[in-house]
Amino acid sequence: MSVGLVRPRVGRVTIFDTVPLDALRRRTSEKWRHYPPDVLPLFVAEMDVPQLEPVVRAVTDAMLLGDTGYPSGSGYAEAMAAFAADRWGWAVDPTTTRLVPDVMLGVVEVLRLLTDPGDAVVINPPVYPPFAAFVDHADRRLVNAPLAADGRLDLEVLERAFGEATADGRRAAYLLCHPHNPTGTLHTPAELRAVGELATRHGVRVVADEIHAPLVLAAGARFVPTTTVIPGAIALHSASKAFNLAGLRAAVAVPGPEAVDDLARMPAVVADGVTHLGAIAQRTAYREGGAWLDEVLDGLRHNQRLVADLLAEHLPAAVWSPPKATYFAWIDLRALPPVRAGADPSRLALQRGRVALNPGPTFGIEGTGFVRLNLAASTAVLTDAVGRLARSLEDVATDS
Amino acid sequence: MSVGLVRPRVGRVTIFDTVPLDALRRRTSEKWRHYPPDVLPLFVAEMDVPQLEPVVRAVTDAMLLGDTGYPSGSGYAEAMAAFAADRWGWAVDPTTTRLVPDVMLGVVEVLRLLTDPGDAVVINPPVYPPFAAFVDHADRRLVNAPLAADGRLDLEVLERAFGEATADGRRAAYLLCHPHNPTGTLHTPAELRAVGELATRHGVRVVADEIHAPLVLAAGARFVPTTTVIPGAIALHSASKAFNLAGLRAAVAVPGPEAVDDLARMPAVVADGVTHLGAIAQRTAYREGGAWLDEVLDGLRHNQRLVADLLAEHLPAAVWSPPKATYFAWIDLRALPPVRAGADPSRLALQRGRVALNPGPTFGIEGTGFVRLNLAASTAVLTDAVGRLARSLEDVATDS
Repeated sequence: MSVGLVRPRVGRVTIFDTVPLDALRRRTSEKWRHYPPDVLPLFVAEMDVPQLEPVVRAVTDAMLLGDTGYPSGSGYAEAMAAFAADRWGWAVDPTTTRLVPDVMLGVVEVLRLLTDPGDAVVINPPVYPPFAAFVDHADRRLVNAPLAADGRLDLEVLERAFGEATADGRRAAYLLCHPHNPTGTLHTPAELRAVGELATRHGVRVVADEIHAPLVLAAGARFVPTTTVIPGAIALHSASKAFNLAGLRAAVAVPGPEAVDDLARMPAVVADGVTHLGAIAQRTAYREGGAWLDEVLDGLRHNQRLVADLLAEHLPAAVWSPPKATYFAWIDLRALPPVRAGADPSRLALQRGRVALNPGPTFGIEGTGFVRLNLAASTAVLTDAVGRLARSLEDVATDS
Repeated sequence: MSVGLVRPRVGRVTIFDTVPLDALRRRTSEKWRHYPPDVLPLFVAEMDVPQLEPVVRAVTDAMLLGDTGYPSGSGYAEAMAAFAADRWGWAVDPTTTRLVPDVMLGVVEVLRLLTDPGDAVVINPPVYPPFAAFVDHADRRLVNAPLAADGRLDLEVLERAFGEATADGRRAAYLLCHPHNPTGTLHTPAELRAVGELATRHGVRVVADEIHAPLVLAAGARFVPTTTVIPGAIALHSASKAFNLAGLRAAVAVPGPEAVDDLARMPAVVADGVTHLGAIAQRTAYREGGAWLDEVLDGLRHNQRLVADLLAEHLPAAVWSPPKATYFAWIDLRALPPVRAGADPSRLALQRGRVALNPGPTFGIEGTGFVRLNLAASTAVLTDAVGRLARSLEDVATDS
């Protein structure tokens, strides 16, 4: 168990317990419609929370006003900068930022500024699957630098990867996930400094997906923005993840002090894809969502402890310690007999337990034997899900 | 004046007269915030209409339900197919289509399927400015095939452009705007057939932006989908323009019968950028917006006649005949003395008349001396705007 976790009161009601399951099942998003209704969905990154009331009001007001045209102004960047100052003591100059349609489209556009087609992009599997898919679609070459067994950056592996990425004398970038999805690892300032030194030495540019930054859970833990340690980096931020607004996208690219001129070269057409309602919703979340986000964080701390306890009770061979950030549990099931025999635990969970988790191997071959479980759910759903997972892995031997 | 226009009753109230100017000024979109409040905005493609009530309700319900996650299912494509069947008698097979974040991002992804970096893309200036910007950003080479003086496709010019585009033996595409923005030209089946023959002969692939297709105004005129005439074409459709939903984007790529396999090669990551609320809003518009759209079309016919009359009265040297489609007036002001003397009429209109129109040259050098005026406004606003435009062009000689 990570240091600093506060044990929640047992049976406490959190924000995740406030939306009944039948209301969740009326949602039409991927989490609630991808699988048949007998499946308990704990896979895709959506949260089972009521939407923040000021966001509901801002979007509804805009619709009633017919305010459904093209986005305008710098309100989004200013709201993000105010949030960054308040949460992280980070001074973002909105005039140096660029609005982008969403984090991954922004990552691609930033990679296009810093590298050419065929150049290498280093990633750290197991990692958010679209990293590989978008880098590939952007005609860049993937170089893998897997995380260490403890889920942290492996600097030796990273250095070899940087060397490989730049061996042909071409430009290269490193796509950092901070905090890291799916492990929930929060990179330390010392790690970021080491990354910055390696990157400088090899001439590799750092691009940081910081979409999970507001979701730091552990007491005393603090998100340190990449660009405050690596001045040549460019970071992508969005309210999509922390405020459950994947359905109303927007994001902002924030340059480190030495990357301002690079980001300024981003063509104006990139912002054409930004949606006005996404910007309205997310700006409101950044501005008025502080107390709501604290409730979410409180609920996630509760859910981390709950799932840790449930796993200890029902699936003692599972290996997982609550990480410092994100709402994911990246659970190592390799010690379970059916997994040792080669079964993918997410497949057994779905087929036999009717519970949907993200398959570990979609995050990279390093994820074999793991599942990603979404903790942003009610006590009842999480309890049911871990029970189903345990039963689906227990008796498989009699079945296969 | 085009044949087939029905003269509206004078002083009739249309849907465009139902939103008071002070309510419009509370909107936070580009149309209403880009310029100071003393400027009358008739530039960007937003309509001064109340939003369709079922769309307001669908979005509000989704927000209240917290249904703000990732999109799911084929409801958008099915709704677009039902709309296409109903409006145009066009049989679209939703299973062959692909959801894309918006029309221009979809155009770029389709161009990437059909051409390689450095290949040529033919466009018809004067045309929607993002065509040139996105083609350039996609590392393709622009080849211009300007429209004829009457605003129609010039097949000889197009043939020369196709020859130039493929002279080096490389692949090439033709980005058709149908109906054409800014002229409002509705291409005829005979023109599309001729385009198809030229394209086949030169090995050029046709990509059609058909976002204005629902906005056909002239009595008896009919939108004929490009892919029904050119089977190797791929078309992009969206409810954004006709239903004033630029702020809640979504679009669908529809292949002709001979382009199904090409479109199937589009990587799955492209759909990652689609927003759930955009899909919900636009699906509802396609499904439930028929009567509302008819009101809009009725109001636009009224406004075409109104502006034609106003120009005849106040600016008789202006040349414009209401086109068959779109809500734009592409007004030729080259006969006006200050324009003949080299002034950009949109600049004079903004500086002296405080009325914002799209500058003609942003659509291509062929647009010099023209302005694009957005007809989707109230009788009062249009009357005021044409008066301002006339005054700003009349007495400039005393001033410059």
